[in-house]
Amino acid sequence: MAIEYQLIKEASDSKARLGKIRTPHGIIETPVFMPVGTRATVRAMTPEEVEGLGASIILSNTYHLYLRPGHKLIEDFGGLHKFMNWNGPILTDSGGFQVFSLGHLRTITEEGVEFKSHIDGSTHFISPEKSIEIQNSLGSDIMMAFDECVPYPASHEYVKQSVERTSRWARRCKDYHQGWKKQALFGIIQGGMHKDLREQSAKEIMDIGFPGYAIGGLSVGEPLELMCELLDFTTPLLPKNKPRYLMGVGTPDYLFEAVIRGIDMADCVMPTRIARNGTVMTSQGRLPIKNAKYAKDFTSLDPNCDCYTCANYSKAYIRHLFNVNEILGARLATIHNLYFLIKLMENIRQAIKEDRLLEYREEFYRRYGYIK
Amino acid sequence: MAIEYQLIKEASDSKARLGKIRTPHGIIETPVFMPVGTRATVRAMTPEEVEGLGASIILSNTYHLYLRPGHKLIEDFGGLHKFMNWNGPILTDSGGFQVFSLGHLRTITEEGVEFKSHIDGSTHFISPEKSIEIQNSLGSDIMMAFDECVPYPASHEYVKQSVERTSRWARRCKDYHQGWKKQALFGIIQGGMHKDLREQSAKEIMDIGFPGYAIGGLSVGEPLELMCELLDFTTPLLPKNKPRYLMGVGTPDYLFEAVIRGIDMADCVMPTRIARNGTVMTSQGRLPIKNAKYAKDFTSLDPNCDCYTCANYSKAYIRHLFNVNEILGARLATIHNLYFLIKLMENIRQAIKEDRLLEYREEFYRRYGYIK
Repeated sequence: MAIEYQLIKEASDSKARLGKIRTPHGIIETPVFMPVGTRATVRAMTPEEVEGLGASIILSNTYHLYLRPGHKLIEDFGGLHKFMNWNGPILTDSGGFQVFSLGHLRTITEEGVEFKSHIDGSTHFISPEKSIEIQNSLGSDIMMAFDECVPYPASHEYVKQSVERTSRWARRCKDYHQGWKKQALFGIIQGGMHKDLREQSAKEIMDIGFPGYAIGGLSVGEPLELMCELLDFTTPLLPKNKPRYLMGVGTPDYLFEAVIRGIDMADCVMPTRIARNGTVMTSQGRLPIKNAKYAKDFTSLDPNCDCYTCANYSKAYIRHLFNVNEILGARLATIHNLYFLIKLMENIRQAIKEDRLLEYREEFYRRYGYIK
Repeated sequence: MAIEYQLIKEASDSKARLGKIRTPHGIIETPVFMPVGTRATVRAMTPEEVEGLGASIILSNTYHLYLRPGHKLIEDFGGLHKFMNWNGPILTDSGGFQVFSLGHLRTITEEGVEFKSHIDGSTHFISPEKSIEIQNSLGSDIMMAFDECVPYPASHEYVKQSVERTSRWARRCKDYHQGWKKQALFGIIQGGMHKDLREQSAKEIMDIGFPGYAIGGLSVGEPLELMCELLDFTTPLLPKNKPRYLMGVGTPDYLFEAVIRGIDMADCVMPTRIARNGTVMTSQGRLPIKNAKYAKDFTSLDPNCDCYTCANYSKAYIRHLFNVNEILGARLATIHNLYFLIKLMENIRQAIKEDRLLEYREEFYRRYGYIK
């Protein structure tokens, strides 16, 4: 098998767990946050910078790479790792989330999804088999099964149909996938906000059997409490000896709550996206750096941070860069935000090790402003 | 004095010369190309990256920094070096070129230039004294006298008036400048395309006396041959024991022709600007990387280049980055172009050392496509 999961410790005060995932491109310590490199680049960053921040795996997007530059080109080049100069593990999504997000530009059938490109309107078709073909070309270490991520809210009837189709598609993905020694394929549990459907999905996907399981269709607009309730219900259904990946989660509170409920992996575009818009996360909460009040603030973004940005630059300088629209502003904020989440996960792992995760969460929430 | 120039060698086959400039922030080997960091950042680059390319001095802009974030803010911070985290030498221009470029937005009087900001239309006034005040606040190692750079073409009558005013302004700059131990102030020779006025300007500026001399008002749209003719005439008027700076020059041919005529320093925004637009300089000439013909080109930008970009990325990848508008594209092209010119100047210094500069020029011009 391409990957191997090792459970190292279960927390005594929650369902959190420490683990390791061995992949053909290196070891991932879990729980882990995965930076997103949508179009074969983590925006504004070089691979060496991403690695320097402590990232042990990045995510890239099947839909975007299929359209540009095309998966065959990347395969001809020798795969995504080589193309983008990242030698660590890569996880690719299935393209499902993106094509379903196209709304009226796509049509779902049992066979797959026909859609029009958001770039030039050209017509394309992605089936479970096509998604696997693309991901095989990309050569990611962890691939994802092609699924439907239903919007929130959605009716029981619609979600039930969707869950059952997602299970049939998962079967087709597994049957079509070649090269299990090089690339692992994860199944995705759906079921919306309906516990019985989460249970059905978990059972069906686990019956097919995968080396790892993702929980999809959460963090799609529902309240945090509802996500927690669904995680409380779903995670215990999953086997202990396989990694668990919660898709699309990246704010500190969602990360804490997910880890506490037994999640090992998470990803989100949020830290890099808000960075480019001038918002950084600090130990005291979010900070909109373009704000005039930072114009003459000669201190670093976060007194408790030792990233490259905080070690070398002031709020005044970074605000100036955003104010005059200089690329270095986006770079410095991206470095800081990614480091913030990677470091947070490192601290979380340490806290699990020392059996004080709930304590650490309380402390973090107070400082960050989640608890007033 | 803040700077000290040492003439190391004069070429036997041309007027080219090797030298060293000692500054409070380090030594500059000449001839040198200076990357431009207009608004306290070399666009898309960190200072460490700029240094890593071998840059020994950068240029920054008085006009832009005066408007945003303001020179007093930078002074309060402890100067431009600290503000932007660049510990090497900095040269600042006087703001003259930018305010004169504002066209109908400015009015020239003997006292100075009143202008409206290109950002918000607010009214400002820069005099020779104000320019020095701003540059004193910035704390650059080399400051420039406030001059008028006349457009090409310009009448003898207009240029004569302008030359004489520029001389009076140079006097006022020298009188007003404090802190000669920390900051050198260079005079600027003007005179348009008129030899008699170049001679008059050189005489007047040298009579005032500065630790270095710039030649302004060339490379403003005139043919290369005319610039060469003016340089052939003007450079010999300058003292041998002071550095000579040709302002605003940065294409390989202009750099070669300037160095061959005794120029020690040059700067230009061209390499970084065209990089962001997707054009790179290579040993075989310019290469527009967005061109479809590079879509499947898996070779590096330049087979003869050992920069970070060429060592790690293909044309296909860089084209993809530009195609999808990713910041890393601008970064990789900027790294390559700056390295190309810095390395060119290093090779030029080596060729002077070995008395084969004209030979090297011929070889370079053939490969680059200047000679067919």
